[in-house]
Amino acid sequence: MADTNTVYFDRIALVGIGLIGSSVAHMVRQKGLAGHIAVTARSKKSLDTARRLGIADSVSLDQGEAVTDADLVMICSPVSTYGAIMETIAPSLKLGAIVTDVGSVKGAVIRDAAPHIPDGVHLIPAHPVAGTEHSGPEAGFAELFEGRWCVITPTEDADHTAVDKVAALWRTAGSDVEFMDPDHHDQVMAMTSHLPHLIAYTIVGTATDLEKSLMNEVIKYSAGGFRDFTRIAASDPTMWRDVFLNNKEAVLEMLQRFNEDLTALQRAIRWNEGDELFDFFTKTRDIRRGVIDARQEKLYD
Amino acid sequence: MADTNTVYFDRIALVGIGLIGSSVAHMVRQKGLAGHIAVTARSKKSLDTARRLGIADSVSLDQGEAVTDADLVMICSPVSTYGAIMETIAPSLKLGAIVTDVGSVKGAVIRDAAPHIPDGVHLIPAHPVAGTEHSGPEAGFAELFEGRWCVITPTEDADHTAVDKVAALWRTAGSDVEFMDPDHHDQVMAMTSHLPHLIAYTIVGTATDLEKSLMNEVIKYSAGGFRDFTRIAASDPTMWRDVFLNNKEAVLEMLQRFNEDLTALQRAIRWNEGDELFDFFTKTRDIRRGVIDARQEKLYD
Repeated sequence: MADTNTVYFDRIALVGIGLIGSSVAHMVRQKGLAGHIAVTARSKKSLDTARRLGIADSVSLDQGEAVTDADLVMICSPVSTYGAIMETIAPSLKLGAIVTDVGSVKGAVIRDAAPHIPDGVHLIPAHPVAGTEHSGPEAGFAELFEGRWCVITPTEDADHTAVDKVAALWRTAGSDVEFMDPDHHDQVMAMTSHLPHLIAYTIVGTATDLEKSLMNEVIKYSAGGFRDFTRIAASDPTMWRDVFLNNKEAVLEMLQRFNEDLTALQRAIRWNEGDELFDFFTKTRDIRRGVIDARQEKLYD
Repeated sequence: MADTNTVYFDRIALVGIGLIGSSVAHMVRQKGLAGHIAVTARSKKSLDTARRLGIADSVSLDQGEAVTDADLVMICSPVSTYGAIMETIAPSLKLGAIVTDVGSVKGAVIRDAAPHIPDGVHLIPAHPVAGTEHSGPEAGFAELFEGRWCVITPTEDADHTAVDKVAALWRTAGSDVEFMDPDHHDQVMAMTSHLPHLIAYTIVGTATDLEKSLMNEVIKYSAGGFRDFTRIAASDPTMWRDVFLNNKEAVLEMLQRFNEDLTALQRAIRWNEGDELFDFFTKTRDIRRGVIDARQEKLYD
């Protein structure tokens, strides 16, 4: 592995400047990881904001222009945009450039991006497991990645030096780097992140459809448990739409299991099967202990 | 309403000394609300702990003995125990005594307890909307109720002075007191608390059944969203079994709505209906804003 203190890129290009992209820019600035940060985005407004925040040395609506001469290109936009972005930027990528990303699914990234990667350019997909309920360039901050996992999912023939550089960047950001097979990553995230988000969106949506007076009381008394779901369900809709459409098999598989378990509990409630409920509610405590033992609680609260 | 500074009981009897009961005892001690705190519980171990913690002036395994001469009897045990407790303590209740509780459902409390209440004794059901993931007498602390709601659900013919005294106790504990019809309370809590807990228990249970290696990774990467569910799903199994069995209609009704919404989202994922997903994920953001505006976030985090 490369020394985390020595990673440096003459020019980093960020494609997309939302919560994650702007946090990366802040972090790169703070740690002095790049000579030049080029930012490209779909909206002029986002680019103006990036300028104003001082996190871009140059901005451009032209993706090809932004990535020209970049040593590291990081795609920080919703996963559904990768194919079109790669098609656009491919001719402008310099020999030896690294293309990486921050997407929450990895199989689809490789499916969509890899076919467009020119010879001599390295695709190193990555997923910083970090985020907040806020979106947009103004929501970013340099410390977002501290103490978080970053999962890198290199293909088997990936260039080791390029992998080391991406890993070094995330370690410098304060993240714990892990390597994983892309499909395995997608399966783990389906359970730890994608299904929880789907469930949270659903229950908050269910509340939205209640009659107005009842909904106001749901908000008033949300501290009883509901509130935790509203935080998760406030995440960026475009990003999450793309996650579900691009990790469909794994999400539907976990959702099917969840549905079976929920139906069993529903039946136990209907037929007053108290022992079954008690046993189910007891076994879930063990996982909580595991989460606390793994210090996921302390690290990320 | 009574002045919150003047409420005082010569003798308070706590039936049950888990998280809530012990927190009440600490609070009563700290605020000087009682001349004597009598504690009764099913296990000698709990009573010994209460003694050791200094939150009981007398302890007894005999419920009738504990409530004798008490001005206020507070039932702090799982909802399924109320009928038997009331049957046992009824002959020992003094004229003018107030019987209250802390249960998360209120319709069932009135159904089970009211028939046993002697003439001249006042049943004033209450629900402090507070808790942690920890259980047992050692988990209690005086500040648990500060800034939380306490919902009181008096019957129509309830004695006003008795209602005022219970309200004053909870206001002194730092809670915001609201009054509600018992059935309406159960409907609101089904959505804000009971359904979220059921869903959280389910998803954590689903993860428990994954193959061991995958489950370890679910724990490792739980910060992606899953972790929030493990906290909710670590709550006391007995208490929650009783909640679901005693608020069955409202929980099953909300669960049915949830299931319909989840099935719609599942179908949208399967058939790549991105617009439908986007619209659904957008409307849930409004509720989050409501929760933040209602200061549920600031108050309770």
